Amino acid sequence: MKDIPYKIYLEEKEMPKYWYNLRADMKKKPAPLVNPGTGKPVTAADLEPVFCGDLVAQELDNDTAYFEIPEEIYNFYKMYRPSPLVRAYCLEKVLNTPAHIYYKFEGNNTSGSHKLNSAIAQAYYAKKQGLKGVTTETGAGQWGTALSMACSYFNLDCKVYMVKVSYEQKPFRREVMRTYGASVTPSPSETTNVGRQILKEHPGTTGSLGCAISEAVEAAVSSEGYRYVLGSVLNQVLLHQSVIGLETEAALKKYDIKPDIIIGCAGGGSNLGGLISPFMRDKIQGKLDARIVAVEPASCPSFTRGVYAYDFCDTGKVCPLAKMYTLGSGFIPAPNHAGGLRYHGMSPILSELYDEGLMEAVSVPQTEVFKAAERFARVEGILPAPESSHAIKVAIDEAEKCRETGEAKNIVFGLTGTGYFDMVAYEKFHNGQMDDYIPSDEELKKSFDTLPKL
Amino acid sequence: MKDIPYKIYLEEKEMPKYWYNLRADMKKKPAPLVNPGTGKPVTAADLEPVFCGDLVAQELDNDTAYFEIPEEIYNFYKMYRPSPLVRAYCLEKVLNTPAHIYYKFEGNNTSGSHKLNSAIAQAYYAKKQGLKGVTTETGAGQWGTALSMACSYFNLDCKVYMVKVSYEQKPFRREVMRTYGASVTPSPSETTNVGRQILKEHPGTTGSLGCAISEAVEAAVSSEGYRYVLGSVLNQVLLHQSVIGLETEAALKKYDIKPDIIIGCAGGGSNLGGLISPFMRDKIQGKLDARIVAVEPASCPSFTRGVYAYDFCDTGKVCPLAKMYTLGSGFIPAPNHAGGLRYHGMSPILSELYDEGLMEAVSVPQTEVFKAAERFARVEGILPAPESSHAIKVAIDEAEKCRETGEAKNIVFGLTGTGYFDMVAYEKFHNGQMDDYIPSDEELKKSFDTLPKL
Repeated sequence: MKDIPYKIYLEEKEMPKYWYNLRADMKKKPAPLVNPGTGKPVTAADLEPVFCGDLVAQELDNDTAYFEIPEEIYNFYKMYRPSPLVRAYCLEKVLNTPAHIYYKFEGNNTSGSHKLNSAIAQAYYAKKQGLKGVTTETGAGQWGTALSMACSYFNLDCKVYMVKVSYEQKPFRREVMRTYGASVTPSPSETTNVGRQILKEHPGTTGSLGCAISEAVEAAVSSEGYRYVLGSVLNQVLLHQSVIGLETEAALKKYDIKPDIIIGCAGGGSNLGGLISPFMRDKIQGKLDARIVAVEPASCPSFTRGVYAYDFCDTGKVCPLAKMYTLGSGFIPAPNHAGGLRYHGMSPILSELYDEGLMEAVSVPQTEVFKAAERFARVEGILPAPESSHAIKVAIDEAEKCRETGEAKNIVFGLTGTGYFDMVAYEKFHNGQMDDYIPSDEELKKSFDTLPKL
Repeated sequence: MKDIPYKIYLEEKEMPKYWYNLRADMKKKPAPLVNPGTGKPVTAADLEPVFCGDLVAQELDNDTAYFEIPEEIYNFYKMYRPSPLVRAYCLEKVLNTPAHIYYKFEGNNTSGSHKLNSAIAQAYYAKKQGLKGVTTETGAGQWGTALSMACSYFNLDCKVYMVKVSYEQKPFRREVMRTYGASVTPSPSETTNVGRQILKEHPGTTGSLGCAISEAVEAAVSSEGYRYVLGSVLNQVLLHQSVIGLETEAALKKYDIKPDIIIGCAGGGSNLGGLISPFMRDKIQGKLDARIVAVEPASCPSFTRGVYAYDFCDTGKVCPLAKMYTLGSGFIPAPNHAGGLRYHGMSPILSELYDEGLMEAVSVPQTEVFKAAERFARVEGILPAPESSHAIKVAIDEAEKCRETGEAKNIVFGLTGTGYFDMVAYEKFHNGQMDDYIPSDEELKKSFDTLPKL
């Protein structure tokens, strides 16, 4: 057996040349998006006023297994990819576990997360279509940063609607976006009808992701030469993020490593969906019997406590309906919840796989996540994002189980990003000001009432 | 000729196994540190109450060319090294230059800079000596962060004295250090005699690096089982940082690239000294005729406007005297100066090389540096630290000269770190609130008056 280095890097020429579309190999396809006006599956014509044409085609394509990565995107990928698959030797040592732990680290780029993989693709197709620019929303700020970088590269205008409370509390994220030339507007704002309406009804509101989405969509459809882009949930995003899984697969194969457990954090599902895609294919085809585990925050438990139903994708209800595990579009995560993973729903692809029993899900409380984050940082060096730390927490749990059973399992998890812009949350944790609010059954019942009556 | 990838990564097994001590190959050795009490070169016995024994030996050794990197340090290096040598294809394209630009990127670790290379070495020797912990000072925070990470890895106590103004304005840096278990004290503090004295004389002072050094040294020598460690200027630090240059040399050799210009930013000289070490050896031995260029801020121009003389290393005057290019220990950089590179002096090794004409130095104004930083970020993706951006500025200048002359020079520069904790400075730049204060001749004359009268 070959010695496994601390970091398995593919060579540039070994980078995947295609994205992989897991839908092509799913026996039961994810439920289609539905036009809320007609109640029928959306058509390309429904989506094209909002999204770029090529992206609409990717969104609706359940059959094509491989999409060639255009050269311009591929060249951009070369600036920060391939990303390393790291063998967590130091973590294994302090855990005293026979398990072998690997993590695919996506944080080595300025956006600080995997979001850049899809941002550059979406910006590319916007440029190709001859657009002037794109609009989007951002909450925690990772997606907005990634999109700013991508637009700057292709010289596209980038309008980001940033949830007002984040805009004010995370001025540094905002400045990174400005460095890349994006305009950043605190949402709700006076620049859109929906923003003005909300400000009139709720003066002094600090905003929400749902409201920012509605403003970004309005800004796109009402401006000549603009389209809206989204950083998670959508099929097209999981397609682009398959580069994570394909690289992971190639790196593992180089050293003949077969994963036993694959773990990823899940908010809208972009990272998890990308990471698991080739492994899920093998699992569907009976070639791999690895466990695949989604980890979500106990404060926003769409998989573990949600329902599988058609729901609104945004609180403004301007987007198509999606069938997904959801808490209802009226669900609002507790204010003490730090970082991302706040979305009320979940990728339709992952929702279908979970419903079929092809993957598991577990929810974890916040302070346990930060304990795992700090433990990881102290031995592996990398200060992880709160989002990614959900996966760390469960990877450590599994490695500790291996210590009890003596099994040398191969545990692979996705380390989606770094926590450099999340130090306010770490500070709360250090000062003992963080708590583990978990929504009650009654609260969830109320938010389920916001599901559409179809 | 082989195709050069965007990122040249050495394999783990190609990482240097030895640090290289440039002093061994210098025809004229750097001037020795001098004991201010006796006026004579310091002895190991003078230094050992303050520094770890093995580090004192490295500090004073002008003869041994190679020091084997201990296995524990080597294993830690494997977590974030080898660092990539990046071909700046995208920057070359926007500059429309025939030059080939390469940068050695040291920012892919949580400390965000090259400082970790020496921090882990110093922590290792402290652990080996059976110490309980180490003390240090930090201004901008990179060194304190790096040392916290290193101490956490070896389970050593880490006491950081952080300049009070930074402590208050950079709470996130502070929280990163706390994540790694360091105690961070705003300086001046009530915990030391020198701190209490300064607070008595200057109530309400926001502190200075010089004062923090004095507190850290006092804390070390007055606590059983502690020593003081420093992140730049010293010979031992340049020795550890030689890993940057050795990797760069190996990566260039892999593709038969001969550097024509090597550029690095210079504050105390740790990065520059490490980057250039093997190239300077070849230059001294007549095997390479590359230009070697130090870039310093116009607001703190120790090479370009300083004098080569024995000076105090700290404002508290508790450390040995060093012969170096200096502005005088009483020099205080303008408050508008962002980021590091604020030290009044310069590594004695680099000072000697500069004095002999083996390297050049240039100073650049601050807004030009941030313009270059933003330009670089937008095409190369990485948001650079203000310090590193000094090198970027001059690399761009040189590449633009090549556009005029048509020369395809190989330009290599050190990209020491990322700017994620420097967004206040970027914000000032975006808002037009940054200026280019340059000290007048009279100001410098005043600070030269603080030089010791020997």
